[in-house]
Amino acid sequence: MAVEVVYRSSRDPERLFMDKAEADRYDKMLELAESLAEVLQKAVPSLSEQQVEELGIYMAKNRDIFARAFKNQPDALAELEQPAE
Amino acid sequence: MAVEVVYRSSRDPERLFMDKAEADRYDKMLELAESLAEVLQKAVPSLSEQQVEELGIYMAKNRDIFARAFKNQPDALAELEQPAE
Repeated sequence: MAVEVVYRSSRDPERLFMDKAEADRYDKMLELAESLAEVLQKAVPSLSEQQVEELGIYMAKNRDIFARAFKNQPDALAELEQPAE
Repeated sequence: MAVEVVYRSSRDPERLFMDKAEADRYDKMLELAESLAEVLQKAVPSLSEQQVEELGIYMAKNRDIFARAFKNQPDALAELEQPAE
């Protein structure tokens, strides 16, 4: 038995990481997802809380592709994989 | 009376522009909006056609802000204005 260090994002305390860098990336992804959910909810009020959460997480997980699409490569979106169910 | 040149995007033939560059920008915005609507519909199947269309147009109109947010400045989203009703 031994004491070991684990890392987690305060935004999702259930999920533990052995690697700090990985926990950082996960925290940043959740941060972007939350901000996106908030602005999209205001922009399209008919969306449910769950829908904007799913949208935010989906886009935040694929942030590199969306960054390129919004910058000047709409075709980058073709690289998106279907979400795993 | 005189004949004059007007421009339009084939994606929205109702809207006419006197300025070709403006018509080009509008066409590019609609192109991005359509691609976004398509990928978001697949990612979150519960969204209605109208909801993904609104999301796509909203984000495409604000593409510069979203590009920065996805790249590395989530705070850029704070610059978004409330959508005009």
